[in-house]
Amino acid sequence: MSQCPVLALAEQLIARPSVTPADEGCQELLGERLAAIGFNLETLVFEDTTNLWARRGEQGPLFCFAGHTDVVPAGDHLAWSSPPFTPTYRDGYLYGRGAADMKGSLAAMVVACERFISRHPEHQGSIAFLITSDEEGPFINGTTRVIDTLEARQEKIDWCVVGEPSSSDWLGDTVKNGRRGSLTGDFVIHGKQGHVAYPEQVRNPIHLAAPALAELAAMEWDKGNEFFPPTSFQLANIQAGTGATNVVPGKLQGNFNFRFSTESTAAQLQQRVLDTFERHGLDYQLRWTLNGQPFLTAAGRLLRATEQAIVDVTGKTTTLSTAGGTSDGRFIAPTGAEVVELGPVNATIHQVDECVRAADLTQLAQLYQRILEHTLCPQVTNKPR
Amino acid sequence: MSQCPVLALAEQLIARPSVTPADEGCQELLGERLAAIGFNLETLVFEDTTNLWARRGEQGPLFCFAGHTDVVPAGDHLAWSSPPFTPTYRDGYLYGRGAADMKGSLAAMVVACERFISRHPEHQGSIAFLITSDEEGPFINGTTRVIDTLEARQEKIDWCVVGEPSSSDWLGDTVKNGRRGSLTGDFVIHGKQGHVAYPEQVRNPIHLAAPALAELAAMEWDKGNEFFPPTSFQLANIQAGTGATNVVPGKLQGNFNFRFSTESTAAQLQQRVLDTFERHGLDYQLRWTLNGQPFLTAAGRLLRATEQAIVDVTGKTTTLSTAGGTSDGRFIAPTGAEVVELGPVNATIHQVDECVRAADLTQLAQLYQRILEHTLCPQVTNKPR
Ligand SMILES: [Zn+2]
Ligand SMILES: [Zn+2]
Repeated sequence: MSQCPVLALAEQLIARPSVTPADEGCQELLGERLAAIGFNLETLVFEDTTNLWARRGEQGPLFCFAGHTDVVPAGDHLAWSSPPFTPTYRDGYLYGRGAADMKGSLAAMVVACERFISRHPEHQGSIAFLITSDEEGPFINGTTRVIDTLEARQEKIDWCVVGEPSSSDWLGDTVKNGRRGSLTGDFVIHGKQGHVAYPEQVRNPIHLAAPALAELAAMEWDKGNEFFPPTSFQLANIQAGTGATNVVPGKLQGNFNFRFSTESTAAQLQQRVLDTFERHGLDYQLRWTLNGQPFLTAAGRLLRATEQAIVDVTGKTTTLSTAGGTSDGRFIAPTGAEVVELGPVNATIHQVDECVRAADLTQLAQLYQRILEHTLCPQVTNKPR
Repeated sequence: MSQCPVLALAEQLIARPSVTPADEGCQELLGERLAAIGFNLETLVFEDTTNLWARRGEQGPLFCFAGHTDVVPAGDHLAWSSPPFTPTYRDGYLYGRGAADMKGSLAAMVVACERFISRHPEHQGSIAFLITSDEEGPFINGTTRVIDTLEARQEKIDWCVVGEPSSSDWLGDTVKNGRRGSLTGDFVIHGKQGHVAYPEQVRNPIHLAAPALAELAAMEWDKGNEFFPPTSFQLANIQAGTGATNVVPGKLQGNFNFRFSTESTAAQLQQRVLDTFERHGLDYQLRWTLNGQPFLTAAGRLLRATEQAIVDVTGKTTTLSTAGGTSDGRFIAPTGAEVVELGPVNATIHQVDECVRAADLTQLAQLYQRILEHTLCPQVTNKPR
């Protein structure tokens, strides 16, 4: 086990094969460490998912670290250079499923708290951890249910740092200060099945759909804005046909996904798809799934603290971004919290040989500690370091 | 067993479950009847397929009956009102798999020949039967191989009546005097796979293909002519996607089928598809299968004889058509033979409870006999009946 407390804790977490929605005792391990420094623990079990809400202090403002103990499956273990659930060091990197997404961040958060509380016992506000084991999965019984619980008792998060691996090339080069929304549409376009030799007796759903799909693929949905790229539309799946080359199929089915900026609403996008299908005279069914609203923390105390912490620790300037997939930030931001995501380099996440630079995890704990200082004890951080 | 020799023979054939490419002794049964009236038999086995070439007489012109002993599968036997391979009469109809397509026609051909030869022993020319057990299947080892054999020894068919069920409402209402060609294209359109959240890193093959497919679906290929409807294009199958809604697929694959008139050639159609794919800048693969060239017997002795026979026997006038699927006529016509297709009403073919009107089979034998008389003993047919 590493001498570095951050790496040592990361190793312990990686050794637990907590594939979604399994937690495998990770939250118990984190809870023990947090209880030891004065956190009150609440374990919230929703169906197959275990969540931990840990809070230290009663007064506001409430600073929250958010993250997940679950990992995506390791795939073929033999494809890995070392066993995926055996933390292993090679060339300065710590390997293992979850090393970068996001057990390393959880370890850095806990150690950052331990150090912060020991150095600043009289800090302002409170600190909390919101940990789920359902981030990589259907995200039904995880963060969203914990947030429901908090809102029901009017417990409000002011600032939230999510430990998702936000960095591209060097630790801290990118902070996610928002995410695009995600909206999925499943469609069926009906035609009339028949033999290709009798074209007058069929209505070919591929022929009927093609011009409408071409139009949707070419459409400009919005132009994005300062924080968001333009809304994008992607057809992900499409299927029609019986397999036989002499039969015109009776229906075409498929789905598409929008990643949308704050310049469009889900309702507007839905309406434009409907309008297109109608204008092409299609006989269709459409089922919508709103995976997440877009969110944005455009300014505020947390964002300034995070940018300053990165300058303090790395000497370099970060970039704000709203690119990439969704994160549990989408469930926290709607409560009115400022939300930023800061974590390790994401080059290997969800892949074979997932890894994180060992020195980055050590530095990540410094970053998190510095963010706490810039938010919860400004009188300290105004002094030169 | 029926008193009518046509129905009796049809019953014997239907009782043999000769699902493609099985013959189940049907050709042996037909061969015995033909040998008894002076036909020489040649059994031509190509791989899994048994074919019969039977000829009576040496001199030209050569009149040929063509047909198949194989049937499509019966499907769920329990869905039938009576067992599919047990010939059964109900309400004047003979039920059983192959009753209409085309064991009834085979029985009518044999009985027509028996009667014709007994009444006109001094007829002109020769008579042949070309029977395969591979018409409903891949049609690789059936009629096309027999024709190759005949061409290799310069044995030439002048007139050919194919017993496919050509009729729609009443026996003889439609004669097929040609068929459209059939050309299939299998395509793969390549893109670049990736996550929907990073649209700038993907090339979505569905988006790339949609405008090209829409254009092909809307294209006018030709206007047809007096005998052929316009060439038709149908996309039969299309598939893209990993199943996940957050992944842009790497490729789209599918296939389409042309049914084409004599106004277009396969090469012209292929070139127009290629041009369309090129004009849309697609990265594609295309594989072509020419299932059959179009053929047409626009005029000639056989067509006149057939039209007259229908007037003689039914008192009504037939309609010429080139509609519908392909038939083995496409292999016979290229040798220069005049080819017509005349057979029972096709309403139930390939379906559960396939059936044929019993009286139609009796009349079909009269039609075939009358066509023989109009072609091989014109001095007889000029006399009033
Ligand atoms: Zn994650
Ligand atoms: Zn047939």
